[in-house]
Order: sequence, then C-alpha cells, then structure tokens
Amino acid sequence: MPRPLRRYLPILDWGRDYDRSTLSADLLAAVIVTIMLIPQSLAYALLAGLPPEAGLYASIAPILLYAVFGTSRALAVGPVAVVSLMTAAAVGQAVDNGVGYAAAALTLALLSGGMLLLLGVLRLGFIANFLSHPVIAGFITASGILIATSQLQHILGVSAGGHTLPDMLGALWAHAGAVNPATLAIGAGATAFLFWVRQGMKPMLLRLGLPEGAAGVMTKAGPVLAVVVTTGLVAAMGLDGKGVEVVGRVPQSLPPLTLPALDLNLISTLALPAALISIIGFVESISVAQTLAAKKRQRIDPDQELIGLGAANVGAAFTGGYPVTGGFARSVVNFDAGAATPAAGAFTAIGLAFAAVTLTPLIFFLPKATLAATIIVAVLSLVDFTILRHAWRYSRADFAAVLATILVTLGLGVEAGVSAGVALSIGLHLWRSSRPHVAEVGLVPGTQHFRNILRHRVLTDPQVLSLRIDESLWFANARFLEDYMLGRLAEDEEIRHVVLMCSAINEVDFSALETLETLNRRLKEQGIALHLSEVKGPVMDRLKRSDLLEELTGRVFLSQWEAWDTLSEAARRREVGP
Amino acid sequence: MPRPLRRYLPILDWGRDYDRSTLSADLLAAVIVTIMLIPQSLAYALLAGLPPEAGLYASIAPILLYAVFGTSRALAVGPVAVVSLMTAAAVGQAVDNGVGYAAAALTLALLSGGMLLLLGVLRLGFIANFLSHPVIAGFITASGILIATSQLQHILGVSAGGHTLPDMLGALWAHAGAVNPATLAIGAGATAFLFWVRQGMKPMLLRLGLPEGAAGVMTKAGPVLAVVVTTGLVAAMGLDGKGVEVVGRVPQSLPPLTLPALDLNLISTLALPAALISIIGFVESISVAQTLAAKKRQRIDPDQELIGLGAANVGAAFTGGYPVTGGFARSVVNFDAGAATPAAGAFTAIGLAFAAVTLTPLIFFLPKATLAATIIVAVLSLVDFTILRHAWRYSRADFAAVLATILVTLGLGVEAGVSAGVALSIGLHLWRSSRPHVAEVGLVPGTQHFRNILRHRVLTDPQVLSLRIDESLWFANARFLEDYMLGRLAEDEEIRHVVLMCSAINEVDFSALETLETLNRRLKEQGIALHLSEVKGPVMDRLKRSDLLEELTGRVFLSQWEAWDTLSEAARRREVGP
Repeated sequence: MPRPLRRYLPILDWGRDYDRSTLSADLLAAVIVTIMLIPQSLAYALLAGLPPEAGLYASIAPILLYAVFGTSRALAVGPVAVVSLMTAAAVGQAVDNGVGYAAAALTLALLSGGMLLLLGVLRLGFIANFLSHPVIAGFITASGILIATSQLQHILGVSAGGHTLPDMLGALWAHAGAVNPATLAIGAGATAFLFWVRQGMKPMLLRLGLPEGAAGVMTKAGPVLAVVVTTGLVAAMGLDGKGVEVVGRVPQSLPPLTLPALDLNLISTLALPAALISIIGFVESISVAQTLAAKKRQRIDPDQELIGLGAANVGAAFTGGYPVTGGFARSVVNFDAGAATPAAGAFTAIGLAFAAVTLTPLIFFLPKATLAATIIVAVLSLVDFTILRHAWRYSRADFAAVLATILVTLGLGVEAGVSAGVALSIGLHLWRSSRPHVAEVGLVPGTQHFRNILRHRVLTDPQVLSLRIDESLWFANARFLEDYMLGRLAEDEEIRHVVLMCSAINEVDFSALETLETLNRRLKEQGIALHLSEVKGPVMDRLKRSDLLEELTGRVFLSQWEAWDTLSEAARRREVGP
Repeated sequence: MPRPLRRYLPILDWGRDYDRSTLSADLLAAVIVTIMLIPQSLAYALLAGLPPEAGLYASIAPILLYAVFGTSRALAVGPVAVVSLMTAAAVGQAVDNGVGYAAAALTLALLSGGMLLLLGVLRLGFIANFLSHPVIAGFITASGILIATSQLQHILGVSAGGHTLPDMLGALWAHAGAVNPATLAIGAGATAFLFWVRQGMKPMLLRLGLPEGAAGVMTKAGPVLAVVVTTGLVAAMGLDGKGVEVVGRVPQSLPPLTLPALDLNLISTLALPAALISIIGFVESISVAQTLAAKKRQRIDPDQELIGLGAANVGAAFTGGYPVTGGFARSVVNFDAGAATPAAGAFTAIGLAFAAVTLTPLIFFLPKATLAATIIVAVLSLVDFTILRHAWRYSRADFAAVLATILVTLGLGVEAGVSAGVALSIGLHLWRSSRPHVAEVGLVPGTQHFRNILRHRVLTDPQVLSLRIDESLWFANARFLEDYMLGRLAEDEEIRHVVLMCSAINEVDFSALETLETLNRRLKEQGIALHLSEVKGPVMDRLKRSDLLEELTGRVFLSQWEAWDTLSEAARRREVGP
C-alpha cells in the first residue's frame, strides 16, 4: 500500500487486524459511551446557545470521520464544554452581523475544520506548543467557572446572558427577584443528585454487593436517570405551564445536510475565534489522546490528529453540528470500557443516530434546568486552583501567566483570556532569554576547570577577561552581551584579552554574529584582542560561512584551558573569590 | 550628590569637569554641525509633510533637553529621515480624523516622548532588542528607497503622494506628462552636484592643496552651497513664476510654544505608530551612541538614553516640532569635529535658533527641489542590499526576515514592514527553539565521554537509553521532548532505563516540569525508570521546589558516566556508530 495513503488514512492500519474480540470490546464501550453522551450532547448544545439536537448531530458525523482519519484508538470526539463556551462567545458576536445563530455556528465549525486540516497538511502542529501548561490550566479553570456561572440562569429559571463573569453576575443579580421556584427545585435537586452520583453512588452500590463493573456503568448512567426522572416530573405535574423551561419539540431525524453561511463579513469576524477554538480544541484533544495512548505504548501522530479533528469539524459543519474536539471525560470512559479501535466511536455514532431518530419525542418535557445541572457538575471538575499554588512555588513567571489567564478570561472573556495568556507567557520567555546568565570565570587551582569567580576561589589574570555565556546568542540577547562587555571594559583599563567561552551556546544567529563582529572591531580600537573557546561543531560550521573568523583579532581555542595557558602569564595571576 | 539625581541627570556628571579646552572643542563642533543641519532640518520637515520651520524647531529644544538628560557625549538629536517618513505615514492617516496635520505631528511627538520616558523609568529598554539586526537593516534599506521615491515628485515638479512604493510609482506615472522643466533642471542639477560633493569634492580640494580639515568642512557645507546657488537662481530669474515651487514665507521667530491636540480618537490612531517610531528611533539612536562611545571607552546607559530621547520628544511636542531621534550622519560629524560633551549640542541649538530668527527671510526663494535633492543624496547611503547576500550565506531564517521586512515595507508601508519583520523574526526564533536538537548518546570506548551515536562509534546498552537535549526546556519544546521520547520508546521494547543528560539545559520552566512529571508517570506505567544526569546547580535548586525529585522512578546522577556505570551491564553492551 502506498505510504502517503496510509499516513493520511490510519484506518487502513488498524482495519486490517479487526476481529471478533476487538469487535465485542468496541461494542461494549460504545453502549456505555452512548448512554453517557445523550444527555451531555444535549446539554453542551444548550451551553453553546444552540437547539439541543445540534449536540447530537455534532456527535455523529464527526465521530465517524475521526474514526477514519484519527490516530488515537480511544479518543471520543464531539461537543465539549470549553469549546461550546467559546462557540457561544464567538457566535454571539457574529450574530450582530445579521446572520442566523445556527448558520454562524456551522461556519465556525467549517473555518475551524479548515484551519486544522491546513495545519495538519502543512505539518504545523507544533504551533499548539506555544500554549504553555500554566496558560492551559488557567484557561480551563476560568472556563469552568464561566460555564458553571452561565448555567445558573437555567437553574434559577431566569434569563441572564453575558460572556464575562461580571456581566453574568450582574445579570443574575438584576433578575434575582424573578426566580422560578419550580425550576429552582428541579435544578437544585438535579445538581445535588448528580454530585451525589459522582461522590457517593458507586461506593454505595459496591456496599450493596454489586460487582465493580456494573456499579461503574450505573454511575455513568446517573445523568440519564436524572433526565428520566425530571422529565417525568414535568410531564406528570404540568410544570412546563408553571414556568419551567423545557427542551420542547426536537426534530426526529438523522443529521440533516446543512450548508454553512459563507458571508465574507462573517468569516472575518469568526476567523480569530475559529483559530483559538482550533488550537484549544487540538491541545485538549491531543493531551487526552497521548495520555491514553501512552498507557498502551501506542503512538499518536500530532499532525495526523490535526487532520482527524479537521475532518470531524468539517463534517460537523455540513451535518447541523458545531465545533467539536476530543473530550477528556468521554475518552477516558471509552478507554476504561475497553474500546480497542476507533470502530468503538463508529458504533457510538450509530447509537446516537438511533437516539436522534427514536428518542427525541421523549425529551419534549426535559427541563433545561436538568441539562444545566449536568453541565455544572461536569465542569466543576475542571476548576482547579492548585495550579496557582504549584506555579507560585516553582516560578513567579509561570505564576504570572496563570493568574493573568484566569483573570482576563473571567473579566474579558475566553478569547481575550487565551490571547493574553499566550502573549504573556511568550513575552516572559523572551524576556528571560534576552538577559542570559553571563559568568566571569577563572581557573580552579590545580585543575583545568574554569568556574564563576563569584562562587569559587579561582585564579584570574588582570589582563585576561574570560566570560562564559549560558545561552544561545540571538538577536534579543546580542545587545545585552555588547552592553555587558563594553560596561565591563569601561570599568577596567588593564584588560588586553577577552575570551568568550562558548560551551553553552547552541546557536549564533545573524544579529549575534554582527554583534560579535562589532565587538571585535570595538575591542580592536581599544587595543584588546577577542578570542573564542569551546565553540560547538555546528556553531563553528556556521561561523565559517561568515567573515568573523578572518577578522577576529584573537584566536579560536579548542578549550578554555588552552586559551588560558596561551594568554595568561604566571607572574600576573592572582587568586580571587567570594 | 544623591545617586538617583545623578542617574537621571547625567549633566551633573560631565558638567563638573567643564573647562576652556572642552568649551573650544564643543564650539567648533557646533559651528560645523549647525551649517550641516540648516538645510537638512528644512528638508526633513518637507519629507514629514510639515512646513520647513518645523524642522528647525525640532532641532532646538530637543537638542537642549537631550544635553541635560542624555548619556552620549556626541549624539546629535533632531529630525532624521526614517522617523520623518514614519511621521508622514502616521499623520497622513490621522488627518482623516479631522485634526490639523501639524497638531497631529505634535501629538505624535508627545506620545512617542511619553512612551520613551515610561520605558526609561521602568527600565524596559530591552524591548528594543526584539528588533533583530536583519529586520533593522531591511527596514532602513526599504525606507531609504521609499524616501528617495517620495522626493521624486519635488524633483519633477509634480504632485504625487502615497506611502507605499506601488502608490508612489503609480502616482508619478500618472503625472509623468506634467513635469515642470525648470524644476527638473534645478532638482537634477542639485542632485548631481550633491552626489559630486559626496564623491569627488574632497579629493579635488585636497589635490588643490587645501589642508584635510578645511576640505572636510567645505565638503559638509556643500548642501548649503546648493541652497544658496539655487535660491539665488530662482530669485534672479523669477523661476517661482514658472512653476518652480519654493519654500515661501517662513515665520522669523524662535520656536513657538505649541500644545499638541489631545483628542482621544487621534491618540488611539497614533498610539501604534508612536510606539513603532519610539522603538525605531531608540534603536537607531542607541546604535549610533554606542558606536561613538566605544571609540573612547565611554559608556551609554540604554535606560537613561530612553529618558533623554523621551525628554527631547516631549520638548519637540511643545515647541512646534515633530518626532526626533539621534541621527547617524550628524552625530558622526559632531564626533569627528571634536565634540567633547553634550554642550556641543546646546551650542548647535543656539546656532539653529539664531538661524530661525535671522536667516528665514533669505530662504523665501529656496526651491523645494533643492531640499528634495538633499534628502535623496542623504538617504541613498541608507540603501544597502548586501545585507540580503550576507544573511543568505549565513542563515536562511535571517534571510527570510530581511526579505519580508523589505518587501512588506515597500509594498504596504513602514508600520506594516516593521511589524511583519519583528513578528517573523520572533516567530522563526521560537520555531527553532521549539524543535531542539536531541542526541542519543553512547560511551566513547576507553573514556568517560558520551557522544552522539549518529556521529561517533560508541558503546550502548539496549536496556539504557541516554538522551542529551541541547536546549533549555520550556513550554514550546516540552511537548517535542514528550513526542520524541514516547515515539522512541514505542519503537523499542527492550528499554528499561531512560537517562536525560541535562548538561545543556539552562532552565526548566513549569510546563517542562509538568512534562517531566508526566513522562515519569508514563514511563512508570511501562515499567521504565527515568533518570537525570549532569543537572546544573540553578536548575537543580528549582527542581527541589517541585515534587519531581520525590516521584522520580530513577535517580539523579552527578555525571552521565556515573549513570552509565550504575545502570549498564557490561554483558549487554555493544558498539554502534555511523
């Protein structure tokens, strides 16, 4: 089989070895995941501001497409909380442009899918690396808070929108008098029940003597139970007439063929949100995929993952969905339930399609408060402030990046939050590497080792200045070196030789090369020779393509010891140190 | 004297040692620079789209303020070509907002001055380091071309604006039929004469037996000669009636007190251009100042330079000027003429003030074509395409940054050009450091040295994988390491120990720490122990503040040799190599 085809179609790899045992493992996993996904899909569509069926549709075609193109054997693709929140924020802006909400969500999925595919084909998956862990952790925590807060309106039975924490809290406060008691009872009850399902149900079932597996499946069915009970209550007591908002009529059909709106204005409004959703979705998805793959020593190809997720999103755009990605909770459930290949996903899709066709009339009376409760309980597990403590202990710069991401996300929204976090963490990194550690070194007596004169008792020669730079030389720190060296020389008139010890320099870029050339000229004007020592092979190869080595007033020494031995005179040496 | 006061007022340093010999050196330099600056100031004001006197005014108060706050002893502050071009581009946009052109230029100077002062007080001068040398070189070259092209309209006597090369060339082409012959004769003649002054005048004077010094001064007076002759020609032959545009009436006064427009809309339009002008001006200025200071082993304080330039720009804003910076040509002339202290600048300011009060009536008939010729001849020395060849030879990434800067500056204007260059060069740097060099190492037989198995014949142990990472570990390359290692392990089932050799790691940030923790856990699940070797002191200090060292399944070895000696068994070793 031609390699390019196998690269782009991992299904050709695992499909050949498919047999009865993998089939039965996949089928079991699919049943469990389907039960879990039905209420979750409906709920996340609500969070995204879309009709509930959009959540089901977004779980069908995307799962099938990921099964063909993706490399993870356990990843479950579909609507997830954070991306749903980002969709609501993005589409909320775009609708001001006069395009329908659902159509704009399709366009967002198409844009996001197109970007992911492009990144995958160009093998640019590495750009996701620029989201640092602290930024992701801060963003997920803040998103969890925003999502939970956004659902309080459904629990309270009031209408209070907004995409930032102050907006949401303000709106809730303004409507505090209009709380609907029946809605609140259902919402609070469902929330309490679901928390108990998470915490206390499984131990209780085990104590009642159920086997581990069955207890696990029943726990996962907890949200379905909440849905069934509250739907029944509303229907039986006619609560929809008493102000309890219900899901209402949902079309009973397979995912429809839809065409995203392709208005230029809309596309330019949604381009940045789509890029952010793509990156965040990709990072979330690949983290999950790698975690699960590593447990079985399997391998994830990040660039092929981009193609898998891109195809899933394009699929969502044409089948009435909205942006999707690989979800953490569902993938872990899928993995734990024994899913052996992406076929488990395909079976899940079939289960959800069956639900979309047959079960939708049954959820007419499903209260939105129950769905909100499902979301709140799910996302509160995302909120984790310990990252702040850990980052603080380890590094102030990383702490600043987390804190800024959390505060900006809460205060100004998801897009501003991610952007601020990325900009700040890259800025801090650049800042740190623009001020490298430079050590003035001297000879440790009796050895051929050179150490920092501030930390060790060493021999120096007043006419020979030896500097070790602990960083590659590039444009952001080139001037630092120049400033440092000229400052050092302005203080000390005795120096006749400067030796740059290059053992920690992995690269010298063109700016740094020019700086070295300038330093060489300036030192020459002052009657000082510039030498290099311990230059690494690849750095030396590159320097040979420049004029520096010809113009150098001093020499290139293989080792710092050789430089010292040649330039320093025993009579001038003196011992210095802390 | 209190140190903070001396830090912010370098004049207190050099002022104490001022004597008769420094005074006479400064006076001589001031006379020469004043003669050079009169036509140049008028011309650059024309380039910036301002009345000619603005150029004189921009040279008076700013020079005085820089003399008080600056640290360079030779830097001459005033209007310069590139900043004048950027001013024209920025103010051109802002005037659409309905504010007067000159008032907007004052606002630009105030914003730029405020930003420079702020950066100086916060000691943030390092941000200028993010303009790499190739980007600056490309930008200056492209600006030189834009400036020269923008002046062709004055040489041809047509009206053709635009801020990009295609716009300018298009407008010139459209007006090609309207060329004014008298203007063209003056413009072309002045240009040819000034080129000759640069190239051939000094050698001729020397051949005629003039002493070196006098020949140099006369060469510098060349532009004044061109001004005098062409002004005389226009006045005598009444050419202003034949379509030759002249400077016209210039107010005969000291710099006026002016108030910049402080409209919020205007400020938000000008904020980004002001930031770019500040950074470009600062970089140009500090390069000149450092070059000249190094020749005398003097020291420039970059943060104090920000304050000096900031004060100069604020001064320009309140005295009818526009953004200024330290100019290359004038500073070199000042230095060569023997300026010993910033007082030389103060005397130059007095000379220019005298010119503004007494000489302005004499330039009524000065043709704009002569000023344009002055600019063209001055800026063509900025154009230097050799940077492209040098960058290409040394590094493709740096070449890409120069080329992009040149093309975007010419095609889309100065602001887009600088922004694109900075973004691209930082992006390329981040990209390179996100894919660090990782070498699998083995023992060089008979030594305790470990080398890359791809380059050397070395001993390895199939159960012990030793990896040397040639880069600090931070968020952009953390995932790379994870991918690399998991990929390597998925290929090879025999491995039981992984040793990370950390000799080239200068930093491990929080993301990389989490990656190491994750790797440690994943390797544990696979029954593989993770060890570290040769961890640097500061990195170790930081790791001790995390849980990694406690959770580590392996050990931290002082040296790679110790790790090998402990983990590898002689019976398993085999020799591999290229």
